[in-house]
Amino acid sequence: MSILVVGSVALDTVETPFARIEETLGGAASYFVTAASLYSQVNLVAIIGSDFPREHLDFWGKRPVNLAGLKIEEGSTFRWAARYHMDMNTRDTLDTQLGVYAGFHPVIPEEYRSSKLLFLANIQPELQLEVLEQVSDVRLSVLDTMELWIMTTRSQLTEVIKRVDMLLMSEEEVRQYTNRASLVAGVRQLLDMGLRYVVVKQGSYGALLFGADGTFFSAPAYPLEEVIDPTGAGDAFAGGLLGYLATVEPQQDGEDFSIDRLRSLAMDDVAERYQCLVMCSHFDPNWCSGEPGQAQTISRRGVKLL
Amino acid sequence: MSILVVGSVALDTVETPFARIEETLGGAASYFVTAASLYSQVNLVAIIGSDFPREHLDFWGKRPVNLAGLKIEEGSTFRWAARYHMDMNTRDTLDTQLGVYAGFHPVIPEEYRSSKLLFLANIQPELQLEVLEQVSDVRLSVLDTMELWIMTTRSQLTEVIKRVDMLLMSEEEVRQYTNRASLVAGVRQLLDMGLRYVVVKQGSYGALLFGADGTFFSAPAYPLEEVIDPTGAGDAFAGGLLGYLATVEPQQDGEDFSIDRLRSLAMDDVAERYQCLVMCSHFDPNWCSGEPGQAQTISRRGVKLL
Repeated sequence: MSILVVGSVALDTVETPFARIEETLGGAASYFVTAASLYSQVNLVAIIGSDFPREHLDFWGKRPVNLAGLKIEEGSTFRWAARYHMDMNTRDTLDTQLGVYAGFHPVIPEEYRSSKLLFLANIQPELQLEVLEQVSDVRLSVLDTMELWIMTTRSQLTEVIKRVDMLLMSEEEVRQYTNRASLVAGVRQLLDMGLRYVVVKQGSYGALLFGADGTFFSAPAYPLEEVIDPTGAGDAFAGGLLGYLATVEPQQDGEDFSIDRLRSLAMDDVAERYQCLVMCSHFDPNWCSGEPGQAQTISRRGVKLL
Repeated sequence: MSILVVGSVALDTVETPFARIEETLGGAASYFVTAASLYSQVNLVAIIGSDFPREHLDFWGKRPVNLAGLKIEEGSTFRWAARYHMDMNTRDTLDTQLGVYAGFHPVIPEEYRSSKLLFLANIQPELQLEVLEQVSDVRLSVLDTMELWIMTTRSQLTEVIKRVDMLLMSEEEVRQYTNRASLVAGVRQLLDMGLRYVVVKQGSYGALLFGADGTFFSAPAYPLEEVIDPTGAGDAFAGGLLGYLATVEPQQDGEDFSIDRLRSLAMDDVAERYQCLVMCSHFDPNWCSGEPGQAQTISRRGVKLL
């Protein structure tokens, strides 16, 4: 199953309290494509300027990434600059230069239209609606968004939510959009809009899956000792999720500056972390309750990490 | 295996944005005893005043709770009053009346000394050291503490940490005590002090277990739609943890005002939630990585919740 993704490809300048990198490959679609192409064919729709470094295209060229829908236009590539705070969870956007994105309208190439999985990465809801108008054969459509659209284009965002199968939101975004203090109540409200699934992203705490049929699944995060650059973690997570759904092979990461760590990731790395998560999230399914005082054998579970 | 617990038994007055309850049963040891006695014999060491309501003792009398070490002294029971903020994660202590706790020194009765599991509930580190001086046969000693002791009696707390097997701390407390931004680095520092295990409590995100041998286990929290009174959640968690270790039957809860919900909890309720956690934390251990594009059967996992 191939995956269609529509979103931003950008050049990012990122500062953390510990380091700084200039004009590196960024944008939601870049993170998504790099993660998802570990699993399956990915069909990219985005726009870049004539100043976009050729090396990034060459990198994707070595992966099962179709660039037929990547428009190259005379002008500047979208640029984003941000500075992370000490806790690495909050950041200030220092600069946004739309460049060729200013007049962008996504066009889905004919050869992409058989894609069964669709990821609407974080761009304006109006553009996401334009994408939905051009696809008909999708089995699962997945939507990502951000606080900016909840605040400024809520009604269009609501239209998109009503037309997709799965929504990815951070827990803060769920509370903002639904205006509910209880996460579970907020998710229920979202599911009542017609979504089949809501995935709540909780940063270093992992992610929760809620289904309209009552399904619940809690995925712990892999505990990282050092976070170098959290940019794109949610997009890489989405790439792993849809990649998994395309081939049943999960992935979840977000280390090193830009996509450099992701770039060097091999399926063996994914398999190794997956096995860690199998172990560290395993509850003995054969446990059953006995009377107090009735001792049972303790089976130790866990995985070597430190 | 019986469990020895030393800690506070109190009368609490708790306000939330939604309700208020006066002079209800509270104190770390009360929550612990009520949870742990679902699993195993619990031997309590604490002090109460002559004004302590008889009904609470009658309640524990119906459980496998030994009250031989509960001293009843002429005077007032320890009282604590607090108000929770809107998010239920933060609270202000409004009043603390030590009463008979002021001159308390724990005495472990002879009949308790064969207890194999020890829980040092949150009291002054000096008193916790006095308990450690009186026990010799313990197989696993578990320590709980609070921000107040990290700030005011750090050196005594350090002494206690060096003499126990397992430490329970919230993630904020790990960062405060170790002065490390990285939780994993902070836990490593704690393990380097000689602890065998560190359990990091993350509130509604669950808990993490780190072992000195590199063991790691992530336990998700059961997602509650409504939180009525979070007081004692960590103590009830500890009760479930040590109860599990005594009989291999896990437990984790914290609903309703005071211990009312916990009081009404039966082992079937525990078993039901356990089965939910089995399902919602299950990663397919037989998954293995294939080549991109090589589709495998999707096995849906999860548990009905909403």
